[in-house]
Parts: sequence; C-alpha cells; structure tokens
Amino acid sequence: MIIDIHGHYTTEPAAMHTFRDKQLAGLVDSARKPTTTDLGISDEQVLKSVEKQLAFQKARGSDLTVFSPRASGMAHHIGTEATSIEWTRLSNDIIHRICTLLPDNFIGVGQLPQHPGAAPKESIPELVRMVKELGFVGVNVNPDPSGGYWTGAPITDKSWYPLYEKMAELEVPGMIHVSSSCNPNFHATGAHYINADTTAFMQLIQGNLFNDFPTLKFVIPHGGGAVPYHWGRYRGLCLNMKKPPLVEYLMKNVYFDTCVYHLPGIELLTKVIPMDNILFASEMVGAVQGIDPETGFDYDDTKRYIDQVGTLSEANRYKIFEGNARDVYPLLDRELTRRGHARQTF
Amino acid sequence: MIIDIHGHYTTEPAAMHTFRDKQLAGLVDSARKPTTTDLGISDEQVLKSVEKQLAFQKARGSDLTVFSPRASGMAHHIGTEATSIEWTRLSNDIIHRICTLLPDNFIGVGQLPQHPGAAPKESIPELVRMVKELGFVGVNVNPDPSGGYWTGAPITDKSWYPLYEKMAELEVPGMIHVSSSCNPNFHATGAHYINADTTAFMQLIQGNLFNDFPTLKFVIPHGGGAVPYHWGRYRGLCLNMKKPPLVEYLMKNVYFDTCVYHLPGIELLTKVIPMDNILFASEMVGAVQGIDPETGFDYDDTKRYIDQVGTLSEANRYKIFEGNARDVYPLLDRELTRRGHARQTF
Repeated sequence: MIIDIHGHYTTEPAAMHTFRDKQLAGLVDSARKPTTTDLGISDEQVLKSVEKQLAFQKARGSDLTVFSPRASGMAHHIGTEATSIEWTRLSNDIIHRICTLLPDNFIGVGQLPQHPGAAPKESIPELVRMVKELGFVGVNVNPDPSGGYWTGAPITDKSWYPLYEKMAELEVPGMIHVSSSCNPNFHATGAHYINADTTAFMQLIQGNLFNDFPTLKFVIPHGGGAVPYHWGRYRGLCLNMKKPPLVEYLMKNVYFDTCVYHLPGIELLTKVIPMDNILFASEMVGAVQGIDPETGFDYDDTKRYIDQVGTLSEANRYKIFEGNARDVYPLLDRELTRRGHARQTF
Repeated sequence: MIIDIHGHYTTEPAAMHTFRDKQLAGLVDSARKPTTTDLGISDEQVLKSVEKQLAFQKARGSDLTVFSPRASGMAHHIGTEATSIEWTRLSNDIIHRICTLLPDNFIGVGQLPQHPGAAPKESIPELVRMVKELGFVGVNVNPDPSGGYWTGAPITDKSWYPLYEKMAELEVPGMIHVSSSCNPNFHATGAHYINADTTAFMQLIQGNLFNDFPTLKFVIPHGGGAVPYHWGRYRGLCLNMKKPPLVEYLMKNVYFDTCVYHLPGIELLTKVIPMDNILFASEMVGAVQGIDPETGFDYDDTKRYIDQVGTLSEANRYKIFEGNARDVYPLLDRELTRRGHARQTF
C-alpha cells in the first residue's frame, strides 16, 4: 500500500471561497456576514472536487492520501479568533465529508483554530473534535500564526504544552505547517514554508521538548526544509550546544516527508536521513504544478524519484511508502488494520 | 590557488567588544560613551588574532581568504543609525589592517552601516570608502536589518536601487548575509542565516532585478540555503510564474558558496548547480566548530568534501577553487593579476 501523508484540499468548491469572503466582509460590515455555515455543497460536488486527486493517485500509483485543508487557506493571521474557529470547523468538516465518501482514498488530518496571540490550548476543543468525532489521524500545527512575522513563541515554549499533552494523549502526530504569508519578504511556497520547516527543526535542537513529551511526534514537511542538505551543520550545532548526537536526540520524534521535487534532492534525503524517519508524500495537488521539462513528468510526482533511488532495499521502500506512516500515525495504523490491511514484514 | 570567498573575523581582540559595549552603553548613559575610536590594538595583536585562520589555511590547503567582519557582529538592528555607521567603519578598518599586514592571506569585504528603516542609499558613502580607500573587493548586504522580524522591503524593491547602481559601477558583488537574530524563533546560524539565503533567492525569482542591473552579482552563502536541495521546486515555481527557465533567468548573476558541512550536501550542490555558479568557501572560523565524529575532521573543512567529489573534472575544480571567484569579484581578479597570479586555462 502506498500512503501519501501530505495532501491538501486545494480544489475546494467555490462555495468555500464565497463563504470566506462573506465571513471576512462581515467583520467590516456585519450585514455581509454569512447567514449559515451550511454551504449547500452536494455529495456530487464534493466528489467532483477531488477528481484530480483521484486521477493522480491512479496515474502515479498511490493508494491513500492523508488529506487536510488547504494550508494557505488556514490563514490564521486573518480575521479574528472567532472567525478562525468558525472557518476551521467548516474546513475540517468538508475534509471529513470527503473521507466519508471516499474512505479508501482519503483519511483526514485537521487544521487548528490558531490565531496570533491566542494560546495554543484554545485549539484543544477542535483537536478533540477532529479526532473523536471526525476520525482524523493527525493535525497540522502552525508554528507562526502571524503569517510571516514570527511574533509568537517558539514551538518549544511552555505555552504549547497543553496542546502537546492532548496530542500525546490522543496519539496524533503534528505536521509543522505554516499558512500563507502576509510578509512581502516571504513567498509562501518558495520561502515561508521552507523557512518554517528549517526553523522548527532548529527550535527542536535548541529546546528539549521530547524529554517532556517522549511520545509526541512531529512531521516536518517539504523534505524537512533545508535540514537534510545541511545535515552536517545541524549535527555540528547539536554537538556545539552539548546536546546528544542529533539522530539519538531528535529522530525518535521527528520525521520528514518526501515533498522534494527532483531526484537529486530525494537521493540526498534518503542518503542522510535514517530510513525510519522518511514518509512518502507528494503535496498534490500542490505547491508546484506542471511538467518538469527535464523529466517530462510532474514536479510533484515524487513516487517516481523514490522508485529511481537504486540503493533502497525492498524493506526500506516499504518503510517509506507505508510502514513509517503506520508507525507515526497510530490511528491510521489501527484503522487500516481494522479494514484488513496487515503490515508487511521483512 | 585556492580562494576561500567566505571568512568572517570571528576572533577579534577584546578591545573591539569593549568598544561596542561602551558605544551601546553610551546610548543609555552618555557618560559611558567611548572617548575615542582608536582602539589601541597593536599590529602584533592584529596578527595574533588571526593565527587560527592562518593555521587552518595551512592545514587545509587554502591560500587566500576573502575576509569580512563577524556577520553576527554587524547587528544592524541594535543601537541607532549613527552607532551603526561608527561601528561599521571601525569593523571595516580592522579588516583593512589585517589585509594590509597579511596581503597574501586576506583580501577585504566590508559590512554596510544598514539600520532598520534607513534607506539602503545611506550606506553608499561607506561602500565607496571600503572600495576606494580600503581596497575591498566585495560587500555584505543584509536583506533583513531588523534582525529576524523582516520588517523591511524585499531586496528587489526600488529602494535598494541606488545601492545597486553604485555596486555595479564599482564592480563589487554583494554577499547576501544577515546578522544576528533578535527573534527568539530564529537561531542565528541554524535558522536565520539559512532562511535568509532561501528567502533572498525566492525574492530574486519573484522580481526581475537583473533586467535592471544586468552586471550586478550576488553570492548567496551557506550553499544557497535550501535552494539546491529544492532545485526542482524553484525550477517549477519559476515556470509557474511565467519566468524564463531558472538557470537562464538568474544564474548569470547569482552564485552559491560551498559552506555546506557534509559530503552528501556538497555532492548535491555540485550535481544540480551549474559549475560556473559555485564558489569555494568554508566560513572559517565559523558557525560550526569542532570535529565531526563521522569523519574525524572539522565540519567546516569544506575543501575535503570537494576533493572527494569524484565526478569533478580538473577544469571544474579550478572554477570552484579560483576561476569563478575571479569572475565574480573583478577587483580581486585584477589585484591577483597585478601580483602575478595568472589565471589557468583548460
């Protein structure tokens, strides 16, 4: 089974955008507030909206996508804490509908109703709801709800602890994922996303979070930002800071996905990062669309790159495509087991 | 000849720090202002302060270091525009003394007296001074003088143009290099530096700066941040944004150094980045100090990694170690020619 652990709902029906427009317009002119959170989207419309993802799954050979709302759509810095809560519930609910209609193709991950200045613990009710009521297996955690000004506390700060306690209790890993950038210095997918990945990893080196939360797991997307390319730098900084060796220190809790859009990058990732810490993902329908003229295939068809890494054993290929995802997302593992998908052994 | 294009003066005499303390204390209590900018550092003390760099050059086999003030020491966000000007002159002056005392080992690059909110053109007088009076061959340009809050304009903004006009006229390339971070989210060498490299490159994709300045050159240090690892992402974004192919669009003006502290990273760099765009550097005495237990050698002994890349031809090795530096830094090239160092041909 090929599990793609990083897909966003970037093909949402127009009614979602119309609602969001009205919701934000309502902050300026209350007469424009949406009158209902029932968007009137039919099951047919939901199914139609993910046709592209289903076609990509089929064409590229992946089975199940761990699916969450559009990352840039979270936009925690826009509106108020109340609009963030409302928008988050609605965004998670439609993911739930997709996963209910197409359970073999999608399993849910939710966004949190974060907001600049709001304590992370304020997101706990929605975290509980998405796991207990919507059947989600993970959660996206935004390390910078300010949208590119980084005015909040590092992810190792004690203010995050109540959220982490609940995540650990519910056995859901967090994907560290920022949203759109309102800072003109940072292009969203070309700078802010990658910077956030790098920043979060370095914060985890500086802190000692997993001493306090030994079972908490974070997935750092986009191949871990700059980290694998600078693995020597991070191993050295860890040593300079009198921490244990990097792999021993962080890599029982931190995982990287394979959203790296060329073969040499994937080769580096699989060369330097331990095999237990790499999870297959494509971010499709994603940040970079279109055919790479150098290969003739889509940039985000990441399975092709992994297939081309000749040094991977069958056991390691299985880890990347399925085994590690089932280790990192215990609720996913149990659901697959319940459905009769046994794990392979080597 | 082996030219290391990225060395900072991280071993400055205590008198430099004492001056800076007094200078900043003077902002709070004018009685504490330093009474003179003559630090009373003798030539012997200057020579002693760079013994470590000289020993590393000898042990590792590099000849000439393109040397600039401590990057984190620039601290443009600290103090006032006036203290930044005073501190910058003093920091550049001591680099000039080192280069005068040891011309075979060091050639100068300067910092600018940037300050949050100050227009880049305010740095022009010091730029002219460092080139015309101090004989410097390049300049460090800080894309975020706010120290990690990114409150200024992108490097493609028109406000930077007067500075670029002067750089182009003087034929000095800029190394895009931030200073220390006052944002607790960003570790300086583990996040802020790498993020700034990535951010600057993406800004250059978004803008069209080299259409206006076809001869302007930027060196992006630390191996280009996350860029080579995500080369497919950047090629794809360039295409998505209807720009020319990435290499054609930016790589006549943008260069990456080799400050990547492990062999797999250097292998990736030399595999994906054109051979004309890679400049040897070690950042020594640098961001990451100490012996890598996996190799038994210093992390920042980057020459060893390049020596181990078996696929490099002699001509390409020459480009990385000398030729590209002489192309990117024309004043360096002319000075070396004047001293009788002819360029090799292949």
